[in-house]
Amino acid sequence: MTEHGHGQAQGSEYSMYDEGASLASIEALNSAVAHLDGVRRAVDVTTLVGERRFLHAGPPIELENIPGPMRGAIIGGLIFEGDAADVASAEAIVDSGEVELSPCHAAGGLGAMAGIVTPNMPVVVARSSKFTTFSGLNEGTGGAIRYGSYDAATVSKLRWMTDVMAPALNVAIESAEPIDLVELVGEGLRRGDECHNRLAATTANLITRLAVSLIETASTESAAATLRALADNPHAALPFTIAMGKALALHAHGVTGSPTVTAMAGNGRDFGIQVSGLGDEWFVAPSPIGTPVLADGVSMDDVNPTMGDSLIAETVGFGAFAMSAAPAIMSFVGGTFEESLQIVEEMRSICDGESTRFLLPSQNYRGTPIGINVHRVAQSGVAPVVNNGLAHREAGRGRAGAGITRLPIEPFLAASSALARATSAEK
Amino acid sequence: MTEHGHGQAQGSEYSMYDEGASLASIEALNSAVAHLDGVRRAVDVTTLVGERRFLHAGPPIELENIPGPMRGAIIGGLIFEGDAADVASAEAIVDSGEVELSPCHAAGGLGAMAGIVTPNMPVVVARSSKFTTFSGLNEGTGGAIRYGSYDAATVSKLRWMTDVMAPALNVAIESAEPIDLVELVGEGLRRGDECHNRLAATTANLITRLAVSLIETASTESAAATLRALADNPHAALPFTIAMGKALALHAHGVTGSPTVTAMAGNGRDFGIQVSGLGDEWFVAPSPIGTPVLADGVSMDDVNPTMGDSLIAETVGFGAFAMSAAPAIMSFVGGTFEESLQIVEEMRSICDGESTRFLLPSQNYRGTPIGINVHRVAQSGVAPVVNNGLAHREAGRGRAGAGITRLPIEPFLAASSALARATSAEK
Repeated sequence: MTEHGHGQAQGSEYSMYDEGASLASIEALNSAVAHLDGVRRAVDVTTLVGERRFLHAGPPIELENIPGPMRGAIIGGLIFEGDAADVASAEAIVDSGEVELSPCHAAGGLGAMAGIVTPNMPVVVARSSKFTTFSGLNEGTGGAIRYGSYDAATVSKLRWMTDVMAPALNVAIESAEPIDLVELVGEGLRRGDECHNRLAATTANLITRLAVSLIETASTESAAATLRALADNPHAALPFTIAMGKALALHAHGVTGSPTVTAMAGNGRDFGIQVSGLGDEWFVAPSPIGTPVLADGVSMDDVNPTMGDSLIAETVGFGAFAMSAAPAIMSFVGGTFEESLQIVEEMRSICDGESTRFLLPSQNYRGTPIGINVHRVAQSGVAPVVNNGLAHREAGRGRAGAGITRLPIEPFLAASSALARATSAEK
Repeated sequence: MTEHGHGQAQGSEYSMYDEGASLASIEALNSAVAHLDGVRRAVDVTTLVGERRFLHAGPPIELENIPGPMRGAIIGGLIFEGDAADVASAEAIVDSGEVELSPCHAAGGLGAMAGIVTPNMPVVVARSSKFTTFSGLNEGTGGAIRYGSYDAATVSKLRWMTDVMAPALNVAIESAEPIDLVELVGEGLRRGDECHNRLAATTANLITRLAVSLIETASTESAAATLRALADNPHAALPFTIAMGKALALHAHGVTGSPTVTAMAGNGRDFGIQVSGLGDEWFVAPSPIGTPVLADGVSMDDVNPTMGDSLIAETVGFGAFAMSAAPAIMSFVGGTFEESLQIVEEMRSICDGESTRFLLPSQNYRGTPIGINVHRVAQSGVAPVVNNGLAHREAGRGRAGAGITRLPIEPFLAASSALARATSAEK
């Protein structure tokens, strides 16, 4: 890790960074293995949650600065936990400032959208040789606390998921054949999913792998209701794929001198990145809205800026970085198959490697681009894109749309400079 | 149907056939709807089966001419029915000539591979506004009577499927939301299946749609074992997709003057086609072997010529005619994505229409080619291709391989001439 490359292969513009370090990060992205470990309560997998101590998506944010949907999610979380009896009481708690927030990423986990994780919320847990990672069990495409909803039906559904679905899934996972989550995404790419915004086939694959042990271990009623919840939710597989993504990113993180991006996330106000060779520092800029396909009855003015940790997908080589694997989601967000090929090719220009496990079937199994190099972003002026969902700006209003979003370049520029400084200082 | 087109649109070479008739067949292929109706015993859906009266795949064949795997399948069928206690007794029955064979197609059904259907074998049933069609419940990729196996384990598994799995599925299908089989294939094409030789995602989709009602209506043991049989068999969805194909083909059949191919099938010796405007006549030629990817331990000399009715897939616009939807099977059979695009484009040259429901995601949802026109085949010299499995030449040896197979052109030439004669005679 101490030898500094001179960039002959890629040209002299890369002389300032450590090629060996980048390769070490890429090797980690290509070799780490993460299996599905279970579905448990957040408090069982992280010490960063507790009474009025919640996790949130994206880089750190102060309670007074949180956007509407994150406020809605905290209100929902307080009611879900039984800490607030109603919305007014929950609002009073938030306004009192008595809620402590930490980033999911700081807990080794991820929160989709607002990413509010309270102690008793059920989380999907992945385990690699070194890390245990997690992401909240997906509530479905209707009302969802992660989108800022906090109505009684939404809270009630999450309570059922906590009390019935999560334990049933946890036992089923323990008794089923182990599920390799890298392989699950690899197969998803062969089934028309990019595994960030389209997960219909991957959800069906998970159902196929878990149904038998679910039947054999849960009551008929619980098994049927759990399978119905999964079958009715084409995004059910999301926490399974991104919890794995976080594990891969952690394996790639902490390589001295490595310019590889290991986190990209939004808190609905700021967008931020972390870089392998730059420790836990977040490099941030105002979060983008992009040009999403809007949900019914929503206008662009209603859309909250990008929020959520699910951008880990693109960070490790799926999602928009595998866009040509999923023409059905490309057309959903208003693009053509050719444009999906262009997206992937453009992302290759800012990455140092190719996945050996996330392969693009319609490109004769060429690997997806992996290892976003902050220097390449800085030198090319090309910022990554993500394929993400967007929430309504107001608390409690839920989903607003989805689309391909170009991330702001400033965090990459700042990280590139910081890494160049750190590398010079070392010399 | 009586107006004869003069082919201005396509050029003067088509002046001999009835464009309106072709369009009527294509309209039928694009508008017929087929729902999953149940899983029942063959004797409950056709009068052409009974004691020692079985169905077989492909055009008609005399018992003394059947190829090895079909002989194996009949032996397996006789044992399965309890008519023969062992292989020797079954062989004696076959050699006595006391088995009556009819084509599955004559019964409005289909048999994959050897296509031997005995009275008590379970068949997947599809229903359209006019027709009830069927195809045998798929036995999996291990030993299978349809591939000519007749060992005890194979027979025992089919008995379990008949006694437990089929009734469980039948009840589950009755209590589940209706399953539109055209939509199932359309979605399969969005999930990387071409739904003839790759059906992994479509099988998972079927499991997703049936699991809840299966759990709610069957015993825990039956539900678990049935789901396991489906989950372990990536071809489980095949009879569901091809039974639908037969229904579409029947709706397109019987249009006076129509050059549209409505059946393509092999009996392991002869390959044959039926044509919409030519009644029930089969036009045949020796069945091809093609250049399959061989199973382990199999040589080209071991491969039996193409056999099976599953070529209905290509007849109605999926399978090889949707090859670019399924790069994973294209690579399995040794080709590239670009070659899959070429196959689809070549098939467009012999088809009169495009599917409005089987769409190719990576070609921006252009419809697959449908309505194979025997005159276009004759004039272009381009015979259709199919994406099929192949059996071992010897009875009882099972699967030999799979590949893209070019069909013989002679039956299309003969049908073209016959239709031209029939059309002139009408004038």
